[in-house]
Amino acid sequence: MIVPGFRFAATAAGIKKPGVQDLALMVADTPVAAAGVFTRNRVKAAPVLISQERLRKGFAQAILVNAGNANACNGPQGLATARETCRRTAELLNIPERLVLPASTGVIGTPLPGDRITQALPQLVAALSPDGLGEAARAIMTTDTRPKASLVQGTIDGKKFTLAGIAKGSGMIHPDMATLLVFIFSDVAAAPKVLKTLLRQALPVSFNRITVDGDTSTNDTILLLASGLAGNARIDAAGPAMTTLGEALNQVMGELAWQVVADGEGARHVYKVVVKGAASLADAKKAAMTVALSPLVKTAIAGEDVNWGRIMAALGRSGARFNPERVEIAFGAHPVMQNGQGLGPEAEAAAQQVIKSGTFMLNIQLNNGDCADYYDTCDYTEDYIRINADYRS
Amino acid sequence: MIVPGFRFAATAAGIKKPGVQDLALMVADTPVAAAGVFTRNRVKAAPVLISQERLRKGFAQAILVNAGNANACNGPQGLATARETCRRTAELLNIPERLVLPASTGVIGTPLPGDRITQALPQLVAALSPDGLGEAARAIMTTDTRPKASLVQGTIDGKKFTLAGIAKGSGMIHPDMATLLVFIFSDVAAAPKVLKTLLRQALPVSFNRITVDGDTSTNDTILLLASGLAGNARIDAAGPAMTTLGEALNQVMGELAWQVVADGEGARHVYKVVVKGAASLADAKKAAMTVALSPLVKTAIAGEDVNWGRIMAALGRSGARFNPERVEIAFGAHPVMQNGQGLGPEAEAAAQQVIKSGTFMLNIQLNNGDCADYYDTCDYTEDYIRINADYRS
Repeated sequence: MIVPGFRFAATAAGIKKPGVQDLALMVADTPVAAAGVFTRNRVKAAPVLISQERLRKGFAQAILVNAGNANACNGPQGLATARETCRRTAELLNIPERLVLPASTGVIGTPLPGDRITQALPQLVAALSPDGLGEAARAIMTTDTRPKASLVQGTIDGKKFTLAGIAKGSGMIHPDMATLLVFIFSDVAAAPKVLKTLLRQALPVSFNRITVDGDTSTNDTILLLASGLAGNARIDAAGPAMTTLGEALNQVMGELAWQVVADGEGARHVYKVVVKGAASLADAKKAAMTVALSPLVKTAIAGEDVNWGRIMAALGRSGARFNPERVEIAFGAHPVMQNGQGLGPEAEAAAQQVIKSGTFMLNIQLNNGDCADYYDTCDYTEDYIRINADYRS
Repeated sequence: MIVPGFRFAATAAGIKKPGVQDLALMVADTPVAAAGVFTRNRVKAAPVLISQERLRKGFAQAILVNAGNANACNGPQGLATARETCRRTAELLNIPERLVLPASTGVIGTPLPGDRITQALPQLVAALSPDGLGEAARAIMTTDTRPKASLVQGTIDGKKFTLAGIAKGSGMIHPDMATLLVFIFSDVAAAPKVLKTLLRQALPVSFNRITVDGDTSTNDTILLLASGLAGNARIDAAGPAMTTLGEALNQVMGELAWQVVADGEGARHVYKVVVKGAASLADAKKAAMTVALSPLVKTAIAGEDVNWGRIMAALGRSGARFNPERVEIAFGAHPVMQNGQGLGPEAEAAAQQVIKSGTFMLNIQLNNGDCADYYDTCDYTEDYIRINADYRS
């Protein structure tokens, strides 16, 4: 995964356990167009506050990310430590400090060991390399079991461009569980406002369909940097070029979002809850979200139990309007309920095979209108509890 | 637990595993004043629809309850089966069928074996006894590990009265997890509308502080029957007598609600999330509810981890207004966070002892106003997942 104009490096700074990669640096050769979206949580980590402020002008040159410590709820000292690590990074790279964006993920409320980061910086800068993005993806992991990355290539103005992204998983894709870091790089030429618009447009078909608007952690950050080396005419406004770039971004962010769900803490089954036939878009969203977030449905899926009654109960409390006697539920192509009643053991046996496949669609037809929506989610296993009960020990 | 004017019985009808008590009958000697509150779920079980209808006139004489099968999502056949079991009960008791209220709890979407119930009825009626309430409490259990019961006695008009209730736990006290059955009996004399009013008034200080308004299962039912044998002048309107009865009802329902939380599926820690200093009652409720329902907080408590950062993250996404720099968090009397920052390892060690005690208060001070609210909840353990993944097998 090489994106012209960018270099990457990762190292073990001793923030997590000794010897484990936990610090990554991503650097553009020159200041580049940049955009970001951040958590809407009222409690914002220090790096979020700093990056938000620094991105106002739409340009950046470096991203410094640590795992193992969120640097949230650390008061003025948290802000000072984040600024100091950025200052040292800027010094070593010989660039203005305001072009360095910090990001952190990990435990909340424990002071960030800034000295360990500054000690590791010279080695990190020396290791910067065009093919270091994969290693960076690994260094930003916390409870992720595998790194997440996605790359798309396309053509704009007859020029080939690359768009590549990495993500640090959410642990669990439940409203209050998503500490999400996403970094996307491209060699396309585009104005910062175009990047920002496309980033916002990609959210509803990617991370906002796994985490839910507004229900975010203290640290959620998505950054997009574009070097302009592809050679296309700079995209400044809507048009075919912006559409092409938007599609590429949707694809990379959608793919990363799915990878995050599939690596949910302890997840063994990944599924897409699709609701059709709702009376309104709001109804479709409420119904899909309530079923996708239902712990009782999640635990039934973990047990490979075709417990459609729990799906009906979740639909019934979702607030969506429908007549229970007209609802249809199917696992993949296999219906288990029609007209408000179960189709019996044979139908459920076929549906169970769909669950056993590990990745599937849970299709719900409300027969009450023409609106549809979906949420991607995963099951709730004993490992999820184990991971989160022992997280700090 | 004897309530003058009522008899109770339980038996094994073969709805759950053979030989396990799963059917209970509760009978008043004559038609008595009665009131109920029911699930607000759009998907309502057959017995809920029937009991709601039959309670319109404010009188009842018998309650027939089965565990092991919710009789929900069974279409017209579900209604017919529920009616048939009531009809047979009325016949054996020689009372009008409309005075028999059905209730069910268990798996959704599996036909209720009505024949097994009707076969067990003669034996059940023969076993009716004034001291059978405890046995009935046991028969209505599903994943409950122990029966729930509470009894209060008081004086109205110089007459001693008794109020006794049993509950079938919710499994987990999470919005979509509470299948709750509660049956309360008293010998007090009171008009049906008084019973209904007091029942609604007791909800906000009992079951609605563990389950959340409106987020209910398909079967939730709370019934209150009063025989009038205590000899007090019938309570028809507000006044000291109604206040005394209301206090007794609050006490019984509050106690049952706490028993339900304490027996949450797999629960090892029970705690009360208290939010003070909120700018509005709505803010206090949102904050308390979000922290109480947070799976990340629940799993931290299961691991006896003083992870106050997750509490801050939950507060931050709750929608309640506050300044993170002014928040205080304490476990019991032991503060772990003040002015938005942690108080360090010693403070956390003291707080951990509070968690280890098994039952505690999680005190949150927002310092942003004068409003307060609370929610009772329990932790999320691996056993919770195990119970719910294997529920139907």
